Amino acid sequence: MKQALVLGAGRSSIYLVSYLLDWAAASGGKIQVVDVNLEWAQMRVGDHPNGEALSFNALDADARQPYMEQADVVISMLPAHLHYDIVTHAVALGKDVLTPSYLSKAVKDLDAEAKARGVLVLNELGVDPGIDHMSAMQFLDRKRAEGAEILGFESFTGGLVAPESDNNPWNYKFTWNPRNVVLAGQGGTVKFLQEGTYKYIPPHKLFRRTEVIDIPNHGRFEGYANRDSLSYRETYGLHNVKTIFRGTLRRKGFCKAWDVFVQLGLTDDSYPMEGSENMSYRDFINSFLAYNPHDSVELKLKHYVNLRQDDDDILEKLESLDIYSAEKKIGIPNATPAQALQVILSDSWALEPEDKDMIVMWHKINYKLGSEEKEMQSAMVCKGENRDRTAMAKTVGLPLGIAARLVLERRLDLTGVHIPIQPEFYNPILKELETHGITFSEWEK
Amino acid sequence: MKQALVLGAGRSSIYLVSYLLDWAAASGGKIQVVDVNLEWAQMRVGDHPNGEALSFNALDADARQPYMEQADVVISMLPAHLHYDIVTHAVALGKDVLTPSYLSKAVKDLDAEAKARGVLVLNELGVDPGIDHMSAMQFLDRKRAEGAEILGFESFTGGLVAPESDNNPWNYKFTWNPRNVVLAGQGGTVKFLQEGTYKYIPPHKLFRRTEVIDIPNHGRFEGYANRDSLSYRETYGLHNVKTIFRGTLRRKGFCKAWDVFVQLGLTDDSYPMEGSENMSYRDFINSFLAYNPHDSVELKLKHYVNLRQDDDDILEKLESLDIYSAEKKIGIPNATPAQALQVILSDSWALEPEDKDMIVMWHKINYKLGSEEKEMQSAMVCKGENRDRTAMAKTVGLPLGIAARLVLERRLDLTGVHIPIQPEFYNPILKELETHGITFSEWEK
Repeated sequence: MKQALVLGAGRSSIYLVSYLLDWAAASGGKIQVVDVNLEWAQMRVGDHPNGEALSFNALDADARQPYMEQADVVISMLPAHLHYDIVTHAVALGKDVLTPSYLSKAVKDLDAEAKARGVLVLNELGVDPGIDHMSAMQFLDRKRAEGAEILGFESFTGGLVAPESDNNPWNYKFTWNPRNVVLAGQGGTVKFLQEGTYKYIPPHKLFRRTEVIDIPNHGRFEGYANRDSLSYRETYGLHNVKTIFRGTLRRKGFCKAWDVFVQLGLTDDSYPMEGSENMSYRDFINSFLAYNPHDSVELKLKHYVNLRQDDDDILEKLESLDIYSAEKKIGIPNATPAQALQVILSDSWALEPEDKDMIVMWHKINYKLGSEEKEMQSAMVCKGENRDRTAMAKTVGLPLGIAARLVLERRLDLTGVHIPIQPEFYNPILKELETHGITFSEWEK
Repeated sequence: MKQALVLGAGRSSIYLVSYLLDWAAASGGKIQVVDVNLEWAQMRVGDHPNGEALSFNALDADARQPYMEQADVVISMLPAHLHYDIVTHAVALGKDVLTPSYLSKAVKDLDAEAKARGVLVLNELGVDPGIDHMSAMQFLDRKRAEGAEILGFESFTGGLVAPESDNNPWNYKFTWNPRNVVLAGQGGTVKFLQEGTYKYIPPHKLFRRTEVIDIPNHGRFEGYANRDSLSYRETYGLHNVKTIFRGTLRRKGFCKAWDVFVQLGLTDDSYPMEGSENMSYRDFINSFLAYNPHDSVELKLKHYVNLRQDDDDILEKLESLDIYSAEKKIGIPNATPAQALQVILSDSWALEPEDKDMIVMWHKINYKLGSEEKEMQSAMVCKGENRDRTAMAKTVGLPLGIAARLVLERRLDLTGVHIPIQPEFYNPILKELETHGITFSEWEK
């Protein structure tokens, strides 16, 4: 009897666990789900005969050791910085291990040891990173096999709200970790390559340098750049491309309005504000505007960020958040500006129980075939069912579940530390994702 | 015979050493000047009979020990982060020690030990910090002695070019460390207090939030905020003020043009640019602008930073630097944007041998006397003689020289770690500075 051990039963484990339970029911396997909070583990497993909910601290090596020893594959759904601890333990025990998170330098350095012990350590098995790699590499490898020379590659992914639940002027809700949304773009200057020239965007200009993207049947989006496009030349084998650009999708119009927050300094997470607990939303905004006894906060803000009278769309977005309210309070002592902004946004952008989220992924490849230059695009749109069964949880959980199944069925020969950019990984995973409605469409431009 | 030991014979030691040599000639004392570069030490001392030029590494405790043992006062002109090493050594030897730099936490923590050994450690004895503290505290203490309640305090200092040498559209030249000028304002969000409200300015808005300052007989300046205004409430005993604001002076119009560099991202020092060595000034600017095969770099820049046709003054400043030159090269491999910008600016902003610099310092106090609210301002303007004998070197060196003389003449009773905010320090130092032409004028508004 084959066994899988899932460490962590948070929101992103829903589809992962149910996929694995379905497999276990069909194959006679067993799925153990661990969380410090037993209820969460129980919620994921339900009363499934092939599942077992356990409660212990997954960071306690003695506590987890007997379960890891019994498992045929370990899936770490813990916060990203905790994977290293689990992976070293798994490698030492000779157990294959999967994570949805970015491959860290520390985990990468375990490659030789993992190979020596015949262990597979597979990372970046979620949606972004994850499905983005697999779909991009399948697309690129296919074109390369046809003899194409790749000239440019762009790729954007976004976690958005589905049109049927889209009822605010931002066309946006928090479908995942709000803190990451507030802090987006603050990791440093963005670097990318465009038509053979290195291009740099400082953080305070990021939301003004967007690209418009049309996806057939899904409308118009805009993308802002991710920080690390250049490293993907190496990852995807695109050493000679003239353009490489990765980014994040929002609905058209979002970024110009978000830029107001960036310009004001509201996304800064580096210092606490005195008196934030009793600060009204209005006081908070006013702290970032110059003193002027005659002008209103509304007027000062417009002047400060160069908004014109006809910037109705931006003004409507700002007002929809009640940012000028003198009654609503931040309510958190010593909040950083970013924490205070998150309070304001959460007021308006929380998902309702029946709201559906939507993951959108888009790739563009420019290539040369013979003497002809061509462009192809591909896209995947996946909608969630409700606030719990989100597209985010599905697109993060299913690739992990499928990869775990491949391990359990001994269909993966590779050992060492990997991300899913090889056909051995991406072909079977993408094929199985299709049967769950996660499909890409392609079109020529 | 009294002796002073000066560690470091860089540009800022010129006036310090000559002041001390004058004193030694009159009193029969001796001044030893140390530098790793013997020529520099000799240049400062010349053939003065009371001076001695020495060459050894001041960081080598064994090498410096015999000289420190003979000295009655030690003056550290080494880079700021090296003072701690010298100060601990001086305290251990029971020697009074002076520095021009900001008092670090580590040096501050030596207070008890310095007191136990009867040693005076006096820091922040330059111009800013230094003369700013002394003149501000004398001004504030005098008003407080008159019964005034201080409501607000503002203080700005700038190192500028004197009008007679002011021949570029920026009204600015590098009179001191160019790197510090390029990196100004990047230490984090500025915090200050204005009319009872905390105000925050993010780094990318700093040069748009300036204050205009008129100084009688010297014209119009503008000031941008320093990072650390709030801590001066404690330092200056201004616990109940409604406004506290410290900043840096430039000539009117400088900051709006400098803001173009900030907006583009040219002041970023956090990453190297590939290919910078052979990059032209034009390529460098273009790296921060979006790709567009039809528009010129000039046009793209104007649009990106929202310059209008009638922003002649800003455009003239930018053009005066040859930033659009396709011939001039950055010439440094792996330069950060800030390093590349410094190359461009140094081309145009270097002092000529006979150029004179100018230090400008300005204070404003708002106070209540009885039921009346009043405002007083004071200012000091000091001009240099040429590229070597600068106002900067004079205003940094003389307070140190005078303080050293006070120590040598046993006119200071205080022990422990200090900055010159007490009358025992500021009264005699400011009085002696006046005899060297460093004087403040005051006026009521």
